[in-house]
Amino acid sequence: MSKRIYLDNAATTKTATEVVEAMLPYFTENYGNPSSVYDLAATSKEAITKAREQIAAVIGAEPKEIYFTAGGTEADNWALEATYELLCKKGNHIITTKIEHHAILHTCEYLEKNRGARVTYLDVDENGIVKLEDLEKAITPETILISVMFANNEIGSIQPIKEIGQIAKEHGIYFHTDAVQAFGQVPIDVDEYHIDMLSSSAHKINGPKGIGFLYIRKGVKIRSFIHGGAQERKRRAGTENVPGIVGYGAAAERAARTMQERTEVERKLRDYLIERITKEIPYCRLNGDPVKRLPNNVNISFQFIEGESLLIFLDGAGICASSGSACTSGSLDPSHVLLAIGLPHEIAHGSLRLTLSEETTKEDLDYVVEKLKEIVARLRDMSPLYEDFMKKNK
Amino acid sequence: MSKRIYLDNAATTKTATEVVEAMLPYFTENYGNPSSVYDLAATSKEAITKAREQIAAVIGAEPKEIYFTAGGTEADNWALEATYELLCKKGNHIITTKIEHHAILHTCEYLEKNRGARVTYLDVDENGIVKLEDLEKAITPETILISVMFANNEIGSIQPIKEIGQIAKEHGIYFHTDAVQAFGQVPIDVDEYHIDMLSSSAHKINGPKGIGFLYIRKGVKIRSFIHGGAQERKRRAGTENVPGIVGYGAAAERAARTMQERTEVERKLRDYLIERITKEIPYCRLNGDPVKRLPNNVNISFQFIEGESLLIFLDGAGICASSGSACTSGSLDPSHVLLAIGLPHEIAHGSLRLTLSEETTKEDLDYVVEKLKEIVARLRDMSPLYEDFMKKNK
Repeated sequence: MSKRIYLDNAATTKTATEVVEAMLPYFTENYGNPSSVYDLAATSKEAITKAREQIAAVIGAEPKEIYFTAGGTEADNWALEATYELLCKKGNHIITTKIEHHAILHTCEYLEKNRGARVTYLDVDENGIVKLEDLEKAITPETILISVMFANNEIGSIQPIKEIGQIAKEHGIYFHTDAVQAFGQVPIDVDEYHIDMLSSSAHKINGPKGIGFLYIRKGVKIRSFIHGGAQERKRRAGTENVPGIVGYGAAAERAARTMQERTEVERKLRDYLIERITKEIPYCRLNGDPVKRLPNNVNISFQFIEGESLLIFLDGAGICASSGSACTSGSLDPSHVLLAIGLPHEIAHGSLRLTLSEETTKEDLDYVVEKLKEIVARLRDMSPLYEDFMKKNK
Repeated sequence: MSKRIYLDNAATTKTATEVVEAMLPYFTENYGNPSSVYDLAATSKEAITKAREQIAAVIGAEPKEIYFTAGGTEADNWALEATYELLCKKGNHIITTKIEHHAILHTCEYLEKNRGARVTYLDVDENGIVKLEDLEKAITPETILISVMFANNEIGSIQPIKEIGQIAKEHGIYFHTDAVQAFGQVPIDVDEYHIDMLSSSAHKINGPKGIGFLYIRKGVKIRSFIHGGAQERKRRAGTENVPGIVGYGAAAERAARTMQERTEVERKLRDYLIERITKEIPYCRLNGDPVKRLPNNVNISFQFIEGESLLIFLDGAGICASSGSACTSGSLDPSHVLLAIGLPHEIAHGSLRLTLSEETTKEDLDYVVEKLKEIVARLRDMSPLYEDFMKKNK
């Protein structure tokens, strides 16, 4: 393939070269099982300690509050299921939102269906932001957990996490946030934001796939999700993924170090792309909050066309993009996030997510806009919806 | 460190160079999220398909019966919890053994304590082998699952899996086996052995840490353990660990390809080591079955000494070894496996596991035996138990 412009960094990112280099010695040289007692094992153990420190520093946590998992999804499942199981005698009510990732939504559905949980799914406003008064109203004496994502994976909207944390704290309710899209992209301080649990995943910040963590505030009671050996202070069994953990540490340190400069550039490019598309292509709209938004997220709906067709033509032009969450592509249902912000089905279907990286250039985006204009025009020419619309509006 | 002889391959193995080489392109080049729709994603998807085929071939399964997990522990948890939850209305009884890995035992304890399960822990004979008549007797109309490990991680004993599978099949009970130590070391055929579910982990066969699989026979009903996206045919959510999966595929193919030759050499070296130790060091015994035994496992108890001290001195001599399961080291309790085969506490405490690899040489083992003789003698000289014993037996 000649040209490739990768604008699907919310789905996954390229593992950074320095991250791979940090990982490599832990495959073939320092391969000891950290639970063993000899020198070779100590090397692995020290590497995990260092990574835990690197990650904790990014969110103002203590290293011992970081528990490694296989990814963000496991961390989300763990936070919800284990909290529910420990506290369900006190109350069975969980509050979350309609725009969470499926790792949260499907776990909630499982708890409702099989374990007697009652879940409130909060609405969001037209920009995808939770309304604090709705949250306040939803709280009951049975509420044991509030889980609201830090930033949305499809439309990039950033929630008022500090205010949500404050409300949770005032009511003595645990607060979990899925920060898979936010970690390393926006500043997070677990104390300032009153976060009790936080999920994250390495492969969204140029780390490897297959490794994530759950931050669990000291004192928060939670059972193990995966039972077995005594790893992770008896809270998460299974031989530690040492190279993955090392890679995550390196990626977290790198993301924090480059955050300010990187996201400043990304924000400018993001707004440039939004402006050009919305000005130069008719019948389209930006989804998500224009300001409280992830620095690299662009999500736009194009009327009269199908997102899937758009992606196929973009791929043909060497552009990697998405119509929403990668985890649900293949499904023909419109995005639950776009429906939640009030988009009608037919417009939700014609949505495109472009998520930038530090490697994205203005030239890339100019190319994307030109291609997009061509492709959207071409798809609309084939669209009976567009034809009808144009006839009516002649 | 000058000399290192690594004899703890049951704890973990060095990732093979060819495995790392197979993984590398999936970090920085073919990094696409397999759930996405563009060309780059298709490359990831194809790599997973290939790995699934490579792994399925090793155990005579169909590729679509292989579900990737974060490791053997997650696979064990999944098999037990999900089967229990789906079938507990039919019956709440699980049969397992006293010598399972903690990933099984602690999951059973969790199900007993929190979910109303009744679990029978079968005894084993003095060689660590399950007695089939005990299994038959333990079956009740409420029995929904039999879980017996293929080969023991501490003493290497290989169970009569085919006969157990036959019994399970005759009674219409699901049969799960933890094959973490057996996969790639001994021939396995899921159809011949009537296995319904099988757990395995890459890092035991020169693959990477952090990746495993659960084989689930077509038609076996099981709920998801981790809820979220539609990955692994909606049975295991979370972005696929593509490099890990590719590495597992390469390691599995390699293990199967080299199995016969490799294990023939290992068996000879194993028996050489057992013979020299048991002949040249007094007051010691081999644990586990002398014949029905993993090709690379040696487990010996030395009277009058502590396994931990032995390991420290061996480490000083550049020898990496274990006193039992890596997952429980750090615990001062004697091994539950050694107690189950009838060893008294004080002898169980003086146990040493040496697990060979394809890189182990006769020269390595000669060095180990010489060092072991010195260290055991030295530790016994310091042992009050040994002093008492010698006085009594003068």
